Amino acid sequence: MAWPQWRSRDLDVATPMPVVEMATVERNITRLQRACDAAGVANRPHIKTHKSIAMARLQLAAGAVGLTCQKLGEAEVMADAGFDDILISYNILGSAKLKRLSALAARVKLAVSCDNVPVADGLSGAMADADAPLAVLVECDTGRNRCGVVDPAVAADLAGRIAALPGLRFAGLLVYPPNGPPAATRAFVDEVRRLCAARDLTVETVSAGGTPNIERIGEAGETEYRSGTSIYNDRQMVELGAAAPEDCAVFVHATVVSRPAPGRAMIDAGSKALTSDLAGFKHFGLLVDYPCARLYQLAEEHGFVDLADCPASPEVGEVVRILPNHVCPVSNLFDRIALVRDGRGAGMLTIDARGKVA
Amino acid sequence: MAWPQWRSRDLDVATPMPVVEMATVERNITRLQRACDAAGVANRPHIKTHKSIAMARLQLAAGAVGLTCQKLGEAEVMADAGFDDILISYNILGSAKLKRLSALAARVKLAVSCDNVPVADGLSGAMADADAPLAVLVECDTGRNRCGVVDPAVAADLAGRIAALPGLRFAGLLVYPPNGPPAATRAFVDEVRRLCAARDLTVETVSAGGTPNIERIGEAGETEYRSGTSIYNDRQMVELGAAAPEDCAVFVHATVVSRPAPGRAMIDAGSKALTSDLAGFKHFGLLVDYPCARLYQLAEEHGFVDLADCPASPEVGEVVRILPNHVCPVSNLFDRIALVRDGRGAGMLTIDARGKVA
Repeated sequence: MAWPQWRSRDLDVATPMPVVEMATVERNITRLQRACDAAGVANRPHIKTHKSIAMARLQLAAGAVGLTCQKLGEAEVMADAGFDDILISYNILGSAKLKRLSALAARVKLAVSCDNVPVADGLSGAMADADAPLAVLVECDTGRNRCGVVDPAVAADLAGRIAALPGLRFAGLLVYPPNGPPAATRAFVDEVRRLCAARDLTVETVSAGGTPNIERIGEAGETEYRSGTSIYNDRQMVELGAAAPEDCAVFVHATVVSRPAPGRAMIDAGSKALTSDLAGFKHFGLLVDYPCARLYQLAEEHGFVDLADCPASPEVGEVVRILPNHVCPVSNLFDRIALVRDGRGAGMLTIDARGKVA
Repeated sequence: MAWPQWRSRDLDVATPMPVVEMATVERNITRLQRACDAAGVANRPHIKTHKSIAMARLQLAAGAVGLTCQKLGEAEVMADAGFDDILISYNILGSAKLKRLSALAARVKLAVSCDNVPVADGLSGAMADADAPLAVLVECDTGRNRCGVVDPAVAADLAGRIAALPGLRFAGLLVYPPNGPPAATRAFVDEVRRLCAARDLTVETVSAGGTPNIERIGEAGETEYRSGTSIYNDRQMVELGAAAPEDCAVFVHATVVSRPAPGRAMIDAGSKALTSDLAGFKHFGLLVDYPCARLYQLAEEHGFVDLADCPASPEVGEVVRILPNHVCPVSNLFDRIALVRDGRGAGMLTIDARGKVA
């Protein structure tokens, strides 16, 4: 596998530290934009992966129409930075958040998703006095069993209710198709379209998403696409065939702090740097320079590495690179992460929306 | 089980949010201090759990002699806040960190642990020109298979090397005994003491730690104790019998955002609020008000709750409390967390050392 080459002496970062290769980031941004352009689908990248104003600016410069955020707090950070077209793909509820939402809607072009009546009613209550109605997408579950209406008829009913509620505008549908050919999603979306047409409701936008499916953009009948992970990629995306090794932009750099026993190394990256997200793997990340090594356990600030099967092994003081299983929650652990360009230090990146979970 | 009573209407926090009951925190701090006092062992609580200056002050006020930090960045935050007696229970290496370490040693009473020769040599290099030598504890592994010298003779050799190196002072041993009676740790410590005495080296301090063993403080022959989790406790500590339900001080509050199918609820706490740390459990936390519910999956911002076995179940908008499997990495995800006293709002707590992993 063609992992990026590197020499640790070219870098001087305090470990543990995620290091982002900007040349790869730029290729990845271009790849997503081209896939959207080829399908005639608007690109609305999800900022949950990078949570960075600078990265979002690169995405807009490449042709994205706006941003997707998962939480209100992320959207507020992006609005403060001047982004003026934002989708929050989440059910927003509770009086405190609804007040923040209506304030946000007054200053940017905002859309939200909704999959149930109490959320629709709450949104309407918050927007009743607004100058313009809030665009609301009905979230439909086409197989992930997460959020979303599970029946097209119920989706059309909810669309009708949203269209009738003061302060809201039914703007379309939001789906997050399972990985693989999106035939079931397409059928669901087509059926909701038919039921909405029978009520004189227009399905203007269909928002789909997911990095594993970026080679299938457009096949679900979507008009917009949300992809987060593709800007960085990770071990999970390589495993799924959605990225090649050379598409992985982020490696967590860690230092070997101890070799307490012949077949074992301890590194300074634990669950507070790598997260405990196994993402379906048996171990907590891949040491790309020692692929025979197994990162079999994490304490908060220690990674336990089994080197029993390794012909060569790192000594105390050596910096190793770890491809995270799932990169999105990793960047969320750091205030700033290191940038490189062609392997050489290129400054630090602020994770502006880190920790904005509410 | 006697989980704390509460009424969600008494609180108005934006979920997801860890909520800390101060009455429980104060009882937990007192309990640890009394256990140390009863054993004649100094209390040096580990700040990795709370990462908070205010919480550390309460621990000092109760009788702690100083603080334990796992990383240099945590120790710098605590030193900046005026704490002047700090143990960093970690191998520090690399030129950038060693420079920071020597600067820190110039302004507080500092000790560090060390389990190998390259680390000892690096510490000596950094401290060679210091006014006073740096106290170094030899870390010994007595069964956790993490860091630490695994052989008493090698520990004594390392002690001798540290004692001979410029800028360093051999100050004793650091152990992290496995859960349960610490007979093996005691034997290891006694043997190193004997070997050190034969070299005219004094083992002044023996630092032991771990919340599961706080009822056994002193039994390993320690002079100081490091406990982190006991200030809050969590599901893991209840499972281990180290805490009762009423000793748990932190619950993550989350809102039900969707009931997409009869047996399922979606909550607004996912892996970016709860972490993916299973800590040996099958699910990602315990919904204490619905003990029959299973938090079986996490996306970054969604928790998937199976309610199939529940006689009663929460509706959209209801706030539920989750006892985290492992509390320490949870508070590390938030800039500020909510405080209550006797169930009523008592302000916010800043997590001063959040994200200080380097």
